[in-house]
Amino acid sequence: MAGYHVAPLEVLVEKFESLPGIGHKTAQRLAYYILNMSGEEARAFAAAVTEAHDKIHYCSVCCNLTDGELCPVCRGDRRNRGLICVVEEPKDVFAIERAGDYPGLYHVLHGAISPLSGVGPDQLKIKELLARIGPEVEEVIMATNPTVEGEATAMYLSRLLKPLGVRVTRLAYGIPVGGDLEYADDVTLQRALEGRQEL
Amino acid sequence: MAGYHVAPLEVLVEKFESLPGIGHKTAQRLAYYILNMSGEEARAFAAAVTEAHDKIHYCSVCCNLTDGELCPVCRGDRRNRGLICVVEEPKDVFAIERAGDYPGLYHVLHGAISPLSGVGPDQLKIKELLARIGPEVEEVIMATNPTVEGEATAMYLSRLLKPLGVRVTRLAYGIPVGGDLEYADDVTLQRALEGRQEL
Repeated sequence: MAGYHVAPLEVLVEKFESLPGIGHKTAQRLAYYILNMSGEEARAFAAAVTEAHDKIHYCSVCCNLTDGELCPVCRGDRRNRGLICVVEEPKDVFAIERAGDYPGLYHVLHGAISPLSGVGPDQLKIKELLARIGPEVEEVIMATNPTVEGEATAMYLSRLLKPLGVRVTRLAYGIPVGGDLEYADDVTLQRALEGRQEL
Repeated sequence: MAGYHVAPLEVLVEKFESLPGIGHKTAQRLAYYILNMSGEEARAFAAAVTEAHDKIHYCSVCCNLTDGELCPVCRGDRRNRGLICVVEEPKDVFAIERAGDYPGLYHVLHGAISPLSGVGPDQLKIKELLARIGPEVEEVIMATNPTVEGEATAMYLSRLLKPLGVRVTRLAYGIPVGGDLEYADDVTLQRALEGRQEL
């Protein structure tokens, strides 16, 4: 008599619980919510899961997510093809596109070099990046995360790219706009001082 | 150029965002997680959603969720059928079953009377409860939530049930076990004093 069991409900709760950041209580709440949907809504939800999974794959140029052969950015005809911004994850592309005025292309590594997690250069889309570096590419901007792994990845790539005669840059470090000096950590403040600019 | 669009991904993010307590960022993270699943896992996830929705319905006696004709509690042969515990939601049954030594049956109202949200007695499983009150039922325990709505529902039901000759009780109020008197609110402390018991 330990607990009350309804198999299909438990399976659904387990599935939700397997998602990142979803605990048991939240998984239960989501599962109940699904049960209270109309049959049509529940089927649409299930279809969205399989559709997204089946239709989305990597862009053959920049390795971002897309449902076509090329992603919308690589397909675009008003993009500066001499500029490639290297990011760790597709969500970083969404963030930069949302910010709005980046004119160039992207390259998505799908991770960062992290010996502790067993991620080496071979697991990232680095070969694909090197294959893109032709005479038309003038600059590669490293926009990996400001973490140990992101830094290491940026350093590793810049060592590979510089011999190919391409300019390699890094996103600026500094205090975030709208932030408060008091709450900035020491390293960020040091970087903000080092990177100070003329007014 | 406002943002980067991949239709099936956006549909999936929207679906996750429509769930309670899931914001845009979390929905994105969950959608990416789905994309990184194997095809098999994604299909199992989708199947769990439709299966749970299609197979689970209300127990014909207590209105709890079940995938059979009767729920496991109503089906059980070691339950005290003279005792019915009335709760608002299926998750309350799970909570009481988890606690472990309640010997009786349940009745799930699927809500509480709440004029502000437009929920009247007719939307709750009250007719089904009254239909269960036969000579073998000795006591009905009100275990609705300790909120204004839960209280109102308990009062309403007790007025309906008492004329049928059944004993109606309410879960005890008091300070939570492991709690700290200092942090107990005034009403809870008043109720704990009123309900004090012999040692």
